[in-house]
Amino acid sequence: MPTLDRDGEVFVLDLGTDENRFHPDWLAAVNAALDEVEAADGPRALVTSATGKFWSNGLDLDWLGANPDRLTEYVVDVQALFARVLTLPVPNVAAIQGHCFAAGAMLALAHDFRVMRADRGFFCLPEVDIQIPFTFGMSALIQARLDKQTVHEAMTTARRYGGTDALAARIVDAVADEGKVLATAVELARPLAGKPAATLGTIKSRMYSDVTTALRDPSGASLG
Amino acid sequence: MPTLDRDGEVFVLDLGTDENRFHPDWLAAVNAALDEVEAADGPRALVTSATGKFWSNGLDLDWLGANPDRLTEYVVDVQALFARVLTLPVPNVAAIQGHCFAAGAMLALAHDFRVMRADRGFFCLPEVDIQIPFTFGMSALIQARLDKQTVHEAMTTARRYGGTDALAARIVDAVADEGKVLATAVELARPLAGKPAATLGTIKSRMYSDVTTALRDPSGASLG
Amino acid sequence: MPTLDRDGEVFVLDLGTDENRFHPDWLAAVNAALDEVEAADGPRALVTSATGKFWSNGLDLDWLGANPDRLTEYVVDVQALFARVLTLPVPNVAAIQGHCFAAGAMLALAHDFRVMRADRGFFCLPEVDIQIPFTFGMSALIQARLDKQTVHEAMTTARRYGGTDALAARIVDAVADEGKVLATAVELARPLAGKPAATLGTIKSRMYSDVTTALRDPSGASLG
Repeated sequence: MPTLDRDGEVFVLDLGTDENRFHPDWLAAVNAALDEVEAADGPRALVTSATGKFWSNGLDLDWLGANPDRLTEYVVDVQALFARVLTLPVPNVAAIQGHCFAAGAMLALAHDFRVMRADRGFFCLPEVDIQIPFTFGMSALIQARLDKQTVHEAMTTARRYGGTDALAARIVDAVADEGKVLATAVELARPLAGKPAATLGTIKSRMYSDVTTALRDPSGASLG
Repeated sequence: MPTLDRDGEVFVLDLGTDENRFHPDWLAAVNAALDEVEAADGPRALVTSATGKFWSNGLDLDWLGANPDRLTEYVVDVQALFARVLTLPVPNVAAIQGHCFAAGAMLALAHDFRVMRADRGFFCLPEVDIQIPFTFGMSALIQARLDKQTVHEAMTTARRYGGTDALAARIVDAVADEGKVLATAVELARPLAGKPAATLGTIKSRMYSDVTTALRDPSGASLG
Repeated sequence: MPTLDRDGEVFVLDLGTDENRFHPDWLAAVNAALDEVEAADGPRALVTSATGKFWSNGLDLDWLGANPDRLTEYVVDVQALFARVLTLPVPNVAAIQGHCFAAGAMLALAHDFRVMRADRGFFCLPEVDIQIPFTFGMSALIQARLDKQTVHEAMTTARRYGGTDALAARIVDAVADEGKVLATAVELARPLAGKPAATLGTIKSRMYSDVTTALRDPSGASLG
């Protein structure tokens, strides 16, 4: 389960030690951590990392299979998290130490910046292969954060990008060696910790108002 | 006139041996070829090439001059082809072995990927020079597929990009030597042939819904 | 105050010799210069430069402090200038010989192309630090002219880009040594002087119709 630590001005959210899929309890824990970060006084920034082979594999398809009647409600909650991170009034960096797939990759894209391990792990949007089309909101999020041909390739071919490829495609902003991903992300986040929160939140909310409208539209929360 | 061949999973559409302008009969033949590709069973991808000095020079201005009363209907049909290719549920690559101008360039941009001959031939949007402004739908298509400053330069200066320049501007995804353009495109398309068609079509349709809406709006089908 | 000169087909607008902030009289002088350029017969292009350490620092905050009741009217006028330059039916290049900050940077982004001094001066959007959020129209302008992650970094971190960094981030199209910025911009503009004005204006107006709608919406002219 997600846990929150603090390194000076930089909060470090660890998404967990397994595949870190978005179980409802996991979503609640992440939101509670974000509540704590937002409520903190003084300069602060956020780094989102994880432990082990995975950053996050996204939707909890096992839980969804057991709770098919809660599909729409679940997608609404997931998309609300994307919208929240995308407009968070706190500077934030995803420290992608392991695999980052599907809705996990979208959560990474909602962050301000991304640092990825150079030599192992993939960033991948496998939706076309697993036959789960992106919702309109998910499309809007991905299209808002990546260059046009990178979007097209990532969304239509399910290409797996290693760290170096992801940097070349401008999916991530930096790569780092094993064991240095988190530290690199923290050092990227720290100088941003003093940005005025209210202004930062307004700037992001206006930049991405079309995206958050799409993400928060329950009529678009269909994976079919 | 356009002809359709097959190389294993990869259909090869040859746009013709002259300037391959969009005469109504040419449009009908291209649409019939796309019908055949879409209706085929099993894994399949599409490569669109041509024979000789031209890939396509776009609108058939001679025919339009002789049929001025059919202008809007004609532009509607052309834009419908752009929208169809842009959201085709079949992976596709344009193999640009020769000049690719104006609406011909737009048709190339509607493809998933582009391979261009490195040493001869130009990609060019000459509309500003020939004083035929892009429709809103054409603008939306070009803006959806190229980086922002590339769009601005291409649409406002009518710059002629050779293969190497087009690669640097990220208009095309690869270049190849003379005689290897088609083979390079086929090898790029082949591994994509198994992508699930329905999901692929839904993904593209959602990604580009604003573009296809603009392309399919007859009130925007004015070249003036 | 702004002055207009002419070098053959190329008009050179000098924004002034101090910080070149947007005082209402300065706005009127710039608009009068643009009127003169637009009304000129024959081929013409525009280069916008300045004299001294600054290209422009943007909004005249001293004047605004003394005229708080005119805030909305003032922002409407500034945004009207951005919309005018963005869709100007005359090819134009910003010759950024000095600091280019805030609304000054936005005015530079409204130009077709940008040349920046390589070794001194910064391009910067400091709004997050000075706690003046971008209006929706300003957001739309910046987002229409820069790559996605460049937009995000520039708008959320207030990074100061030197010339070389601005070129790498594709904020500017070229850099030049001290004393060669203006000449480089003039030589970039000159071959474009013959572009048909009406078509060029229509092309730009359609490309950026969403941006100019946002810039011209008085209800969005709030800096708070």
